[in-house]
Amino acid sequence: MPWKDPSTMTTTAVAPETTAVATVPSYVQDAWWTPAPDAKKVPVRDASTGEVLANVSTDGLDLAAVVNHGRTTGQTELGKLTFHQRALKLKELAMYLNGRREELYESSSQSGATKIDNMIDIDGGIGVLFTFGSKGRRELPNSQVVVDGPMETLSKDGSFVAEHIYTRIPGVAVQINAFNFPVWGMLEKFAPAFLAGVPTIVKPATPTGYVAAAAVKAIVESGILPAGSIQLISGSARTILDELDYRDLVSFTGSASTANSLKGHKNVVQGGVRFTSETDSLNAAILGPDAVPGTPEFDAFIKAVVTEMTVKAGQKCTAIRRVIVPQELTSDVAAAIGARISERVVVGDPRAEGVTMGALASLEQLADVRAAVQSMLDAGGELAYGSLDSPSVTSVGGTVGVVEDGAFMSPVLLSWADAEAEEVHSLEAFGPVSSVIGYSSLTDAIRLAARGSGSLVASVCTNDPAVARELVLGIAAHHGRVHMLNREDARSSTGHGSPVPHLVHGGPGRAGGGEELGGIRSVMHHMQRTAIQGSPNMLTAVTGLWHTGADRNFTVETEGEHPFRKHLSTLRIGDAVRSDLREVTLEDITAFANSTGDTFYAHTNQEAAEANPFFPGIVAHGYLLLSWAAGLFVEPAPGPVLANYGLENLRFITPVAAGDSIRVTLTAKKITPRETDEYGEVAWDAVLTNQNDEIVATYDVLTLVEK
Amino acid sequence: MPWKDPSTMTTTAVAPETTAVATVPSYVQDAWWTPAPDAKKVPVRDASTGEVLANVSTDGLDLAAVVNHGRTTGQTELGKLTFHQRALKLKELAMYLNGRREELYESSSQSGATKIDNMIDIDGGIGVLFTFGSKGRRELPNSQVVVDGPMETLSKDGSFVAEHIYTRIPGVAVQINAFNFPVWGMLEKFAPAFLAGVPTIVKPATPTGYVAAAAVKAIVESGILPAGSIQLISGSARTILDELDYRDLVSFTGSASTANSLKGHKNVVQGGVRFTSETDSLNAAILGPDAVPGTPEFDAFIKAVVTEMTVKAGQKCTAIRRVIVPQELTSDVAAAIGARISERVVVGDPRAEGVTMGALASLEQLADVRAAVQSMLDAGGELAYGSLDSPSVTSVGGTVGVVEDGAFMSPVLLSWADAEAEEVHSLEAFGPVSSVIGYSSLTDAIRLAARGSGSLVASVCTNDPAVARELVLGIAAHHGRVHMLNREDARSSTGHGSPVPHLVHGGPGRAGGGEELGGIRSVMHHMQRTAIQGSPNMLTAVTGLWHTGADRNFTVETEGEHPFRKHLSTLRIGDAVRSDLREVTLEDITAFANSTGDTFYAHTNQEAAEANPFFPGIVAHGYLLLSWAAGLFVEPAPGPVLANYGLENLRFITPVAAGDSIRVTLTAKKITPRETDEYGEVAWDAVLTNQNDEIVATYDVLTLVEK
Repeated sequence: MPWKDPSTMTTTAVAPETTAVATVPSYVQDAWWTPAPDAKKVPVRDASTGEVLANVSTDGLDLAAVVNHGRTTGQTELGKLTFHQRALKLKELAMYLNGRREELYESSSQSGATKIDNMIDIDGGIGVLFTFGSKGRRELPNSQVVVDGPMETLSKDGSFVAEHIYTRIPGVAVQINAFNFPVWGMLEKFAPAFLAGVPTIVKPATPTGYVAAAAVKAIVESGILPAGSIQLISGSARTILDELDYRDLVSFTGSASTANSLKGHKNVVQGGVRFTSETDSLNAAILGPDAVPGTPEFDAFIKAVVTEMTVKAGQKCTAIRRVIVPQELTSDVAAAIGARISERVVVGDPRAEGVTMGALASLEQLADVRAAVQSMLDAGGELAYGSLDSPSVTSVGGTVGVVEDGAFMSPVLLSWADAEAEEVHSLEAFGPVSSVIGYSSLTDAIRLAARGSGSLVASVCTNDPAVARELVLGIAAHHGRVHMLNREDARSSTGHGSPVPHLVHGGPGRAGGGEELGGIRSVMHHMQRTAIQGSPNMLTAVTGLWHTGADRNFTVETEGEHPFRKHLSTLRIGDAVRSDLREVTLEDITAFANSTGDTFYAHTNQEAAEANPFFPGIVAHGYLLLSWAAGLFVEPAPGPVLANYGLENLRFITPVAAGDSIRVTLTAKKITPRETDEYGEVAWDAVLTNQNDEIVATYDVLTLVEK
Repeated sequence: MPWKDPSTMTTTAVAPETTAVATVPSYVQDAWWTPAPDAKKVPVRDASTGEVLANVSTDGLDLAAVVNHGRTTGQTELGKLTFHQRALKLKELAMYLNGRREELYESSSQSGATKIDNMIDIDGGIGVLFTFGSKGRRELPNSQVVVDGPMETLSKDGSFVAEHIYTRIPGVAVQINAFNFPVWGMLEKFAPAFLAGVPTIVKPATPTGYVAAAAVKAIVESGILPAGSIQLISGSARTILDELDYRDLVSFTGSASTANSLKGHKNVVQGGVRFTSETDSLNAAILGPDAVPGTPEFDAFIKAVVTEMTVKAGQKCTAIRRVIVPQELTSDVAAAIGARISERVVVGDPRAEGVTMGALASLEQLADVRAAVQSMLDAGGELAYGSLDSPSVTSVGGTVGVVEDGAFMSPVLLSWADAEAEEVHSLEAFGPVSSVIGYSSLTDAIRLAARGSGSLVASVCTNDPAVARELVLGIAAHHGRVHMLNREDARSSTGHGSPVPHLVHGGPGRAGGGEELGGIRSVMHHMQRTAIQGSPNMLTAVTGLWHTGADRNFTVETEGEHPFRKHLSTLRIGDAVRSDLREVTLEDITAFANSTGDTFYAHTNQEAAEANPFFPGIVAHGYLLLSWAAGLFVEPAPGPVLANYGLENLRFITPVAAGDSIRVTLTAKKITPRETDEYGEVAWDAVLTNQNDEIVATYDVLTLVEK
């Protein structure tokens, strides 16, 4: 194990089998911590061999101090960084961990994970850091406040306005993770919390916590993160909820029963601790009526089901548990799944050559899964593939045979004559186990999928857009994610079972009722939304963004300088320029029509234009107005403004006829310096008005400006 | 009372004092319901006189059938309407109820409400319907699915993409309301649920449920709403949570203790019932150090505090309970509040001439408030204004004196020598009661405000932008709303205590941890967010919006018709037109620079343009490209496309130099027919490419098109 640094390790004399192994340390208050030598410890075993690898204990750990460290040091240090600065640190960390993947793979293979499992867990976790490192800079401002939605004007004179902001929650994010993805499960929660500016306390599951600890060791050694950003509790943390209140967030992943016991904690129910959970669910895959054997969709479907049954030995909260297919295709589907498993799946020690499916995480887990399958058999499920007998497996060195201390099982496919059986929709075997049931109509398929009482994900496999629409809209409200598979995306799909950082992971009901990931959405879950009301000047002061109605500084008058001549370092929100009026003649309109080719009747034919409900007669082209406005506000000589790279929210309000005049007022609205470039973005509020001060058009001009 | 229709009324013989009065009926399964004559009933009294007005009972009511009716009939009927159609019905309903306000005022005045209180409750509730009626059509699509955020491309070839959609939850919205705003409290929850397409079950508070019932009677009589949209339970509904599951939502308003008992229900903790609560909180108002006596801010602050103490006799969950002011100003503030109360407040029967503050809702309520004030006095609070003695009040007819059966009390202002006293931050007297405490610094003020452990709203009163920024960002995470008061908005502010439909109402921690209102945000709380993944064609099929990468129908080739010649009724998503290439010459660029005045060096000076990091040399104006694109896609003759009213998301990607050529491809992306006009909006996806098929620019063109 990578933390075998003698200075941080202690050993124990309590359980004989754990004496020879190291204790997985906790990382708290920015230091490694291990319990006293005589503390009670829990052993952790290799999934494939049963060998004791390490032990864990939190005996004597001061959880109140851990929480307090996050709320004080962590909040203070993270509070010194903007979103972009935090995002850059996530990117740096991703690159650093990329260089230490091999040692994490090695640690992880002890948990029964194959090479592919490790890529999902370790590379996948690092991928989340990259995604948030990038999204944080592209989609969040380079500040600490996020504005949500447009300004609302609450008084006729515009002096009382409002909007919503997000600011980080003032506590800690306690992340309680499942055993199946010790690295991804940690990083997918850590990244959004860190980006929000909220300190993390990680509590990995005991069976694979040593892998998470190895990752935390690497993170700490990177020196990239500010003090207090992350703490790790290796071992039990049952009483940590006693220390939390409404300032804090708990993100739980694991079984529904544990989630429920935590959700019922008085600090959640009465104390207002924010609680989100993601629990295993009975995810469905639905085969469309068009996707008969011989179609690319049928093949893609079978492949997806077998992948989900065997990756991570089926120990995925997103795995397909219910295979819902047209009634007449149940045998074909079961046969095809069985055939593909026979052809592709080799069960064994993931460190052995040729093995494609490893062990379950522990013997306890194996016993649970077998018991669940037995209950399903008792309830009417029939074995369509596999059995509950201990399988013959491949060990390191190539030996093939039964390994009593290894948590191995064969993939098991059940078929059910009665699709209504309660057990197929409620019993979950958290291993390489799936059930096939038949449906009679699309309505029936939707109803059966919903009988999972809320799931993380469903796949819908069809090449018929109408079928896709009916199935997806029918089941969406019962699911956190719906994955559509057809010939167009069968090769490029990231797969039914893979949450991607861009998309929400979670689901209603049995799936826990929570939301993780989903890009910046998950950052917002670590922040409080607050409506703010006040004058435009006050909203400008609070948000750092110029608001319509707030004071402007016409810099030509006050500083003798056009705002386009100011660098980012001296440009201020509210710096503005107002042009003179320029008259639009019929000749201008005609010339513009001729040169651009835009001879729409509203610009060329008085009679037809008058018949249009919106125009008084011939009017100037909107694009003429925009182009003239640029001519009115531009500073021609080279200067700090490098380019106009886009435009947002353009609305034409009042038409401009020949004889009318226009002027433009441009105001610096949002200034976003880049962390890694010599320039940044400036959004300018542009208002075109006519000679009567009526608003002709409003929009935002997006520019790149040198620092 | 307005429902005295003999056919729906029964009387009871149980409690002698209730024999002479009507039972407030429930409205369930689209019919009025009253309990059997011998059912056990609870009396409801006039707040000012103690007279028994009515009784309530749900003895014998089948709550499971009520829930089932919503889930079946209600879901089905609401599912036939789009967001715009539902929004229009809300507007119709608002107009209808506007015509029946007088009878609601009459009913409500029995609850102790003054004319102003009624305007807040009844006109305010109708106002919420108007706002959602309008926002629903302006901010939601005219369909049943809401797309959340941009498409994410998950494969290099663009064949696997994803985005998020919202679809309505498949159950009912159970709305448990407080006694203080029987109409507003009902309508502010009903409107977003209805707009989302989710059937409502209203459970008003018993003391003022007759006012809610009068409003429901009017709603039913309007005939505007589809069957199953709204049901009303008059009386106890303690077991309704037993009937709910993850498909349903409970929105609770009331005391923290009731909220906590409901939140602990097994169907919430284990069953996944969505639960949001809004509970009373110890809201603060903070006076900035600059807002000394004599400033407009000081005056506005005093006025706000007195308003919040006395409107609805202080029975508002948003009322100011903690007046946090600079230490040296505590006496000045207390004196000014006392003076304003003396000058302005006349306590009495709201039906009596000259009365400005009515009774509390009931004698029980009065006893609770008095007990809370006594505890605060015991804990160190001192009476700075008012007393706990029964006040002399004005009755109908002008008599002045103590009314023993009326729930009257005097406004009470407490001052505290010790701002740290736990009781000032935790004890709430839900009546005309407030406390003044002093702070030593802005940091101290922020800390004291946060000691409320989560509040609905705080006011910050200062004219110093830096103070506003520090205070607002310091307290935001502990609040659902922050209201800034200064000389600019003192007259136009809608007030500290008034939730507005545009803004989120709710707050973390003690305030319940929920969110209501906030415009369309509250509609989304009644919908499930689901990530959908698939090919661009499948995302197009599911959402009804054209997605980049999906098939296009070039109608000139396939139908012999430019898509601009198609009306809304025949135009289809994906209908497209592709122009020929048009070459851009240096002369074109120069002519455009001269005619528009946009002589920016990148268009006029080869050497300077080359020095710019983004340009190869002289490039065409972005606005030239836009204008030409319009010339390339336009159909000049009059036709169904009436106007180009705006543009969204314009980004210039590849610069265009002299000698390059451009073409435009325009594709119908989003079609939104209006319910009440002869036209609708069509958004067109526009892509400009050059002679090498590189993307030059992308944007959306917004047009109005005839039906």
